[in-house]
Amino acid sequence: MNHFLSIHDVADVHQLITSGIIAKRNPFSDQQMGRNKTIGLLFFNSSLRTRISTQKAAQNLGLNVIVMNVGQDSWGLEMEEGVVMNGNKAEHVKEAAAVIGSYCDIIGIRSFAELQDRDKDYAELVFQQFKKYANVPIVNLESATRHPLQSLADCITIEEFKVKKRPKVVLTWLPHFKALPQAVANSFCEWMNHMDVELVVTHPEGYDLAPQFVGNAQVVYDQDKALEGADFVYGKNWSSYQEYGRVLSQDPSWMLTEAKMALTDNGKFMHCLPLRRNMKVADEVLDGPRSLVIEQAANREWAAQAALKEVLLGMLEE
Amino acid sequence: MNHFLSIHDVADVHQLITSGIIAKRNPFSDQQMGRNKTIGLLFFNSSLRTRISTQKAAQNLGLNVIVMNVGQDSWGLEMEEGVVMNGNKAEHVKEAAAVIGSYCDIIGIRSFAELQDRDKDYAELVFQQFKKYANVPIVNLESATRHPLQSLADCITIEEFKVKKRPKVVLTWLPHFKALPQAVANSFCEWMNHMDVELVVTHPEGYDLAPQFVGNAQVVYDQDKALEGADFVYGKNWSSYQEYGRVLSQDPSWMLTEAKMALTDNGKFMHCLPLRRNMKVADEVLDGPRSLVIEQAANREWAAQAALKEVLLGMLEE
Amino acid sequence: MNHFLSIHDVADVHQLITSGIIAKRNPFSDQQMGRNKTIGLLFFNSSLRTRISTQKAAQNLGLNVIVMNVGQDSWGLEMEEGVVMNGNKAEHVKEAAAVIGSYCDIIGIRSFAELQDRDKDYAELVFQQFKKYANVPIVNLESATRHPLQSLADCITIEEFKVKKRPKVVLTWLPHFKALPQAVANSFCEWMNHMDVELVVTHPEGYDLAPQFVGNAQVVYDQDKALEGADFVYGKNWSSYQEYGRVLSQDPSWMLTEAKMALTDNGKFMHCLPLRRNMKVADEVLDGPRSLVIEQAANREWAAQAALKEVLLGMLEE
Repeated sequence: MNHFLSIHDVADVHQLITSGIIAKRNPFSDQQMGRNKTIGLLFFNSSLRTRISTQKAAQNLGLNVIVMNVGQDSWGLEMEEGVVMNGNKAEHVKEAAAVIGSYCDIIGIRSFAELQDRDKDYAELVFQQFKKYANVPIVNLESATRHPLQSLADCITIEEFKVKKRPKVVLTWLPHFKALPQAVANSFCEWMNHMDVELVVTHPEGYDLAPQFVGNAQVVYDQDKALEGADFVYGKNWSSYQEYGRVLSQDPSWMLTEAKMALTDNGKFMHCLPLRRNMKVADEVLDGPRSLVIEQAANREWAAQAALKEVLLGMLEE
Repeated sequence: MNHFLSIHDVADVHQLITSGIIAKRNPFSDQQMGRNKTIGLLFFNSSLRTRISTQKAAQNLGLNVIVMNVGQDSWGLEMEEGVVMNGNKAEHVKEAAAVIGSYCDIIGIRSFAELQDRDKDYAELVFQQFKKYANVPIVNLESATRHPLQSLADCITIEEFKVKKRPKVVLTWLPHFKALPQAVANSFCEWMNHMDVELVVTHPEGYDLAPQFVGNAQVVYDQDKALEGADFVYGKNWSSYQEYGRVLSQDPSWMLTEAKMALTDNGKFMHCLPLRRNMKVADEVLDGPRSLVIEQAANREWAAQAALKEVLLGMLEE
Repeated sequence: MNHFLSIHDVADVHQLITSGIIAKRNPFSDQQMGRNKTIGLLFFNSSLRTRISTQKAAQNLGLNVIVMNVGQDSWGLEMEEGVVMNGNKAEHVKEAAAVIGSYCDIIGIRSFAELQDRDKDYAELVFQQFKKYANVPIVNLESATRHPLQSLADCITIEEFKVKKRPKVVLTWLPHFKALPQAVANSFCEWMNHMDVELVVTHPEGYDLAPQFVGNAQVVYDQDKALEGADFVYGKNWSSYQEYGRVLSQDPSWMLTEAKMALTDNGKFMHCLPLRRNMKVADEVLDGPRSLVIEQAANREWAAQAALKEVLLGMLEE
């Protein structure tokens, strides 16, 4: 079964990036591939880019699309096994996954971290259960710990805009008043570790990401130092992994400004969006020529198309 | 007008079951039938199986599908005639039904019992009003008193799995802490009364279903006795019909366990889903080889496809 | 860029009306026009007719359709520029519009007046921002001050039902207990000022619409006098424009009854719907032969199809 849950499901990352770039040039050339197949997109959480870009990519491939907001359109789902279901969740994932898998040829799922219990979030129960019971390929539309369609779009964007053979890519923590998941940052590190880049991660102390995601990246607690000579600055807020889910700092000096970006080597700015302006990043950066956030978001369509094509090809081989 | 509101709209139940089984073998052979036609699916209540399986079946038939959560995507609808509309419902069904009927060639509707007023629920006002004013075929996606697409899927499933010419089918009440409608139980009895089965209904006293639905079924208040020699055990909770909408019992001894199922003749277990595990039915039954709940839910697609095909054929004849 | 935000974006109103009437006769003749193009429909507010008729019209033209309830499916959007985004809105329209515009070839938007601040509502910030940043044609599915797809459907309906060369058309205020926007009334006046009709607007004092919309219409504060000899009576409630957003009157004598309609010249009744029966209009009018509300709502499909065709043609020319 060809799932797309993380980079570990990808046979050849560089071939996948190329596939995305090819889809961008010729979006409709594989339109027969999805014919009479249906992808179900299940949203446990809000979504804009993922919701629209995945629908669009699926339609480019000729797939039928069925979208469902879980718990709003349908019933709350129990994920734990062996429990007496006398609470507010009316259906068990064992049934729901198997049933949806009987209607849909592929299932895409978005389910965020709850940021209450690290072990629980990092066990990725929702995805594990769907993988176990749905009997069809599962596509990660952002899980508690990863956002691979975002990371693939990020790789495509860096590939398109890099001017050096081995660019310096800096992932920088940005201030935010709410506790946000580590998924995008984790996933970005994981994919960058497969790319020919110099990866630096910078954040206040206490915000270290899980080591399995950081990989070979250099970790620097001084943002200014990290930014020196950067070709790409990837901004993101996340809550603490060690003191799980806590907001340890809202230090406004970590906000990205043109003064900060001046430390880079004419660095480009990237962010997965949504983004709170003038809290995480100043207008001057976002509205200036170094911002790639729109190009990056636009590449979500081609990332999704490359991933779905991979899944469809895997189905043909079976 | 070929509505699909209940079994009374079906010319030949056995032909319809066969049509579902044929659709399952060859889902896309009628794909020209729905071309340039649109089905609107209106949900007044939550839905998972019905929502996805009906969209899927419609797409198999080449229909365009438009889904709307009434009251959430659109306005609250007034169903009563002659009232001064100075409350919280901004639109009358007379207009809404006629307008939706002008855009859609078929309208599917889900609207549950409110369990406050028996006469009102059993009058099926929502469906009667849409039938009266929409001027297009109406398909019942579960009404206050019936769930015919579920019952048709149930018939297909029994047809597929029966090993005796005339199997014993037991509908058993299961414990639940919430007041649930009688629709699935009513509808199941009504359809089983048209099948060549021995139908037994078992529940605690006070839970008798309306006689027009029970029909020729034998009613037994002793669950163990009812289960003896059963080929199919169909579990469902419902609230009282006599003391309308009340939960008279939550007796845990009515939960289905393997010990209970051992009383059957190697009986298969069925349930319409969603289902609260270890409250209505024990994990051991659901996770064992006698459970048909996934096969049954999968058959919702073919039931919907057979019903929609019937409706489309009726439109061609006009 | 061929937007469809108001009548000012229409090159030839009469040609557009004719295009709608032709689409009604032959809905699928332009089905190749939208092939491999996608329209995104963004709803900031509830919708029934607009939601369904626009989807239907888009499908008639072969467009793919992606529907999103903003703030419910996705994030709350900040519309103001230069702000520090530390409130409850997680994304800025600058990003959202550009991103959606990268996925969709056309964007339709519904966003009502908030009725708190007249200057803000009448500045139409949501539409101005999407127009500025989306880089694709924007279609107005009802804005704070206008509802051009409704007005176009109204024009089509009057064209179909008029029996005089220059009919008398009366827009009459109707009583309602809630504060409603002026959008439909504004837009109706604006379009009627381009038609060969005698336009009269009647309402209690204090309910005058903005002069730029009233145009050459005659304003009469006596409803009975206004209705005399009317061929079409267009009913609508709106809140005060002068004392912005206030309900100054709920005078029940302004409700339309058969006695009122008897003052007309066998006048037809029109209303954009939804409509509160027996508060704004009596059942006897709505259920009698002079009501055109269903025909008018049905024409929303052909108005949307004509408008979208215009937008698509504009894209081909670029």
